[in-house]
Amino acid sequence: SINDQLQSIKPKFFLIKMIKVKTVYSSFIPLQGPLLALRDWVAIESDSSNVLKRPDLHRMMEMAAQKLRLMGGTVELVDIGEQELPDGQTLALPKVVTAQFGNDPNKHTVCVYGHVDVQPAKLEDGWATDPYNLTDINGNLYGRGASDNKAPVLAWIHAVEAYQALNMELPVNVKFVIEGMEETGSNGLDAMILAQRDTFFSDVDYIIISDCGWLSRRPALTYGTRGNCYFYAEVEGPKQDLHSGVYGGTVIEPMTDLVGILGDPSGKILIPGIREAVAPLSDEEWRMYQDIQFDIDNYKNKIGVNELMYSNKVDLLAHMWRYPTVSIHGIEGAFSDPGTKTVIPAKVTAKFSIRQVPNMDPAMVKKQVTDYLHSVFAKRKSPNKLKVTMVIGAKPWLADTQHPLYDAGKAAVKRVFDMDPDLIREGGTIPIARTFQDVTGKSIIMMPIGGFDDGLHSQNEKMSRYNYIEGTKLFVAYLNEVSQIKHTSV
Amino acid sequence: SINDQLQSIKPKFFLIKMIKVKTVYSSFIPLQGPLLALRDWVAIESDSSNVLKRPDLHRMMEMAAQKLRLMGGTVELVDIGEQELPDGQTLALPKVVTAQFGNDPNKHTVCVYGHVDVQPAKLEDGWATDPYNLTDINGNLYGRGASDNKAPVLAWIHAVEAYQALNMELPVNVKFVIEGMEETGSNGLDAMILAQRDTFFSDVDYIIISDCGWLSRRPALTYGTRGNCYFYAEVEGPKQDLHSGVYGGTVIEPMTDLVGILGDPSGKILIPGIREAVAPLSDEEWRMYQDIQFDIDNYKNKIGVNELMYSNKVDLLAHMWRYPTVSIHGIEGAFSDPGTKTVIPAKVTAKFSIRQVPNMDPAMVKKQVTDYLHSVFAKRKSPNKLKVTMVIGAKPWLADTQHPLYDAGKAAVKRVFDMDPDLIREGGTIPIARTFQDVTGKSIIMMPIGGFDDGLHSQNEKMSRYNYIEGTKLFVAYLNEVSQIKHTSV
Repeated sequence: SINDQLQSIKPKFFLIKMIKVKTVYSSFIPLQGPLLALRDWVAIESDSSNVLKRPDLHRMMEMAAQKLRLMGGTVELVDIGEQELPDGQTLALPKVVTAQFGNDPNKHTVCVYGHVDVQPAKLEDGWATDPYNLTDINGNLYGRGASDNKAPVLAWIHAVEAYQALNMELPVNVKFVIEGMEETGSNGLDAMILAQRDTFFSDVDYIIISDCGWLSRRPALTYGTRGNCYFYAEVEGPKQDLHSGVYGGTVIEPMTDLVGILGDPSGKILIPGIREAVAPLSDEEWRMYQDIQFDIDNYKNKIGVNELMYSNKVDLLAHMWRYPTVSIHGIEGAFSDPGTKTVIPAKVTAKFSIRQVPNMDPAMVKKQVTDYLHSVFAKRKSPNKLKVTMVIGAKPWLADTQHPLYDAGKAAVKRVFDMDPDLIREGGTIPIARTFQDVTGKSIIMMPIGGFDDGLHSQNEKMSRYNYIEGTKLFVAYLNEVSQIKHTSV
Repeated sequence: SINDQLQSIKPKFFLIKMIKVKTVYSSFIPLQGPLLALRDWVAIESDSSNVLKRPDLHRMMEMAAQKLRLMGGTVELVDIGEQELPDGQTLALPKVVTAQFGNDPNKHTVCVYGHVDVQPAKLEDGWATDPYNLTDINGNLYGRGASDNKAPVLAWIHAVEAYQALNMELPVNVKFVIEGMEETGSNGLDAMILAQRDTFFSDVDYIIISDCGWLSRRPALTYGTRGNCYFYAEVEGPKQDLHSGVYGGTVIEPMTDLVGILGDPSGKILIPGIREAVAPLSDEEWRMYQDIQFDIDNYKNKIGVNELMYSNKVDLLAHMWRYPTVSIHGIEGAFSDPGTKTVIPAKVTAKFSIRQVPNMDPAMVKKQVTDYLHSVFAKRKSPNKLKVTMVIGAKPWLADTQHPLYDAGKAAVKRVFDMDPDLIREGGTIPIARTFQDVTGKSIIMMPIGGFDDGLHSQNEKMSRYNYIEGTKLFVAYLNEVSQIKHTSV
């Protein structure tokens, strides 16, 4: 474990170079700090999708707040109310942590957004190590949430700490918004942003999000994300599970109904209206995709498949970033353990999601999916009951890459990595990006530090030491670059 | 709990009436014995389908053997070798318990078969009580395995104990064969029976199985069971689970493939050759079904549905007992927990089974299913890999209801319950019935004592006190009736 390793570690340090008005400041920051902090954060199973883990999630928010308080920030834990569960019960949402460092009206103010909740993970899913015990193997730090999004949030915190350690003034005012419901659709955050638009967010000039990854070994800046509509399709039949030998042949089985309405020989999205809403691919986009560094063989190797949906780079990038896709994640209520069980499950709920792109509208998609499934189900003339629920409805987001925020990003990447970043989009969803844009009207940049092979949402998620530490340096440099943006261009 | 209840119970007793050559012997047997024994047996999670529970299963077999040893039986724990798991590993099978009470060559010898392994059960599945803590509610004893098959095995043991308590000689020699792999297809038992055909089984005249239930409140004798072929259809794609946002749209998802090959709008068995093999329904069968006591509304209420596959009694009984059916039990490897997870599962295994009836042949069904799924999968032109495995292949069984064994059964039912039994079949599978028939050539009777609403394989499985105790009396009476069978008719 990291702990054992730290016991035996020789004092190691990493170099922070900060460039301010042509002067180089150097500082040695102990490496233990970031590693211990990440270990402590990963140790908390802050799974926002599992209601049984809610106490851990509350603890995680408190831990993040305490860290920022100890650094001297002005910290608040904002109550964002309750969550309504599908069964009608309510549950307290994790509070949102806001923090502020500096309030000089002559400086720009950036607001860093991040989240400290995680996707589910169990050792039995096929992890090589305990997902909640950060483990360093060959310079990679394995643990659930390491890359998504705990290390990036900590890297931003370390960037502020680096200035403090050098007794240097921050070049911009830095605010934090850290939430705990990102993995399930940022429940409650929209309302909180709206409520604080004219208070906490009123002096914010730019919003920075580091909740994604590079596309290759080349650093990247991200200018778009897909949204996501997540559905439950529940088919309910008998009042309890039945023995398939004793009852099989007499009851209309919910599982047969469910698989029947999901199953489709083509594997395409059959729902009318979905594809029609998608913005067409422009020639300019096509050319841009052509120039991006993306190794198809590398991608295949990483995933471990011989064949992809498409065989050329532009088609692949386009279907990763700017076309919708449907994934069936699994079925709750059926027999899913190892071994054999001869059961007719009484109530089964399929979970699937459709990634959203411009110009799809989640409200419309909800209606399209619900109508379609009910029409297919009606044809079965089943006595079972179908219930379709959309539990997440997150919009896509797209930024203007010509904005000075992106120029500052390119400069910071150049400074730390000595190369130009790729300008990329993200297939995944950062639901709140779109809300920030719509509600605050501020410009947003996504500045990832995660590696292309970090395994977000998968077994063996990791963040490399290299990306964690160089990423921290990038953020230090970026704060400085942003301070150079002319005030007129805000 | 039963324990608390027993602390406060007033001494209660139940009456055993044994009729031997026109003489009535009565005895009072303390009720605590059977209840405590069942509580101890149910407390062991002897789930044969879960390899992690194998130590509990070994302990269960040892406990059954010890019980029979303490009663003075000649007991053996027979090593039946190892089980090969789908991944190629091997695991010791639970030993088979054999026991013998009496070896008078002038008496008939019956062999009672039963099993003490259980189906999986977890409180979260929707049990009202801990499935491994036997709980008495209104005269029903709730617990996994209470009815299937722990209480019936104990009832046979108590029947022998009743004779012993009265210092009466057993009217027939009684042997026991108790196994621990019934719920997953009686792995290893076929070979053990074959190996001991000319030793342990050589002097056995009749085989008795009490591993099923009544059809209504009327007691029943069972003369047929369906077999079962249980399949795993595994689709394997990426080397690990992937984030559906990041990768969705580029990879061919195993879950889509799997649902695509399982899903069928009609809900019928589409596999060529399956229905063609089924023996046609005879006029005599049709008339027999007409006479059976079966309340359709009661059946619907019990299951909790408004509509069944068929609306008349004969069709329902026929499809419960003598036509094949397919059930999809669930999918292993996909996301099955509560909450949302945006994952593309890398390897997913559907579990489904097809109930076998005369004249289907499991070896043929295996080929038909495998060929069919591969042909449907091939049409998808998917780069993923499909693997179809048949993990259980149990044949159906059918007895001659004109045999004196059934006459003896009718007489015993009449004696204890003062009514005639229904002659019924069983939709479920007792794999070993067919093997006993084929290997030993002995006649078999199934004499159920489980209630029609015991919830085998479901949540809240139970055995009523009434059926447990009256069932014990039935077995006492039956041993006596069997002793009256003329030796010539063996």
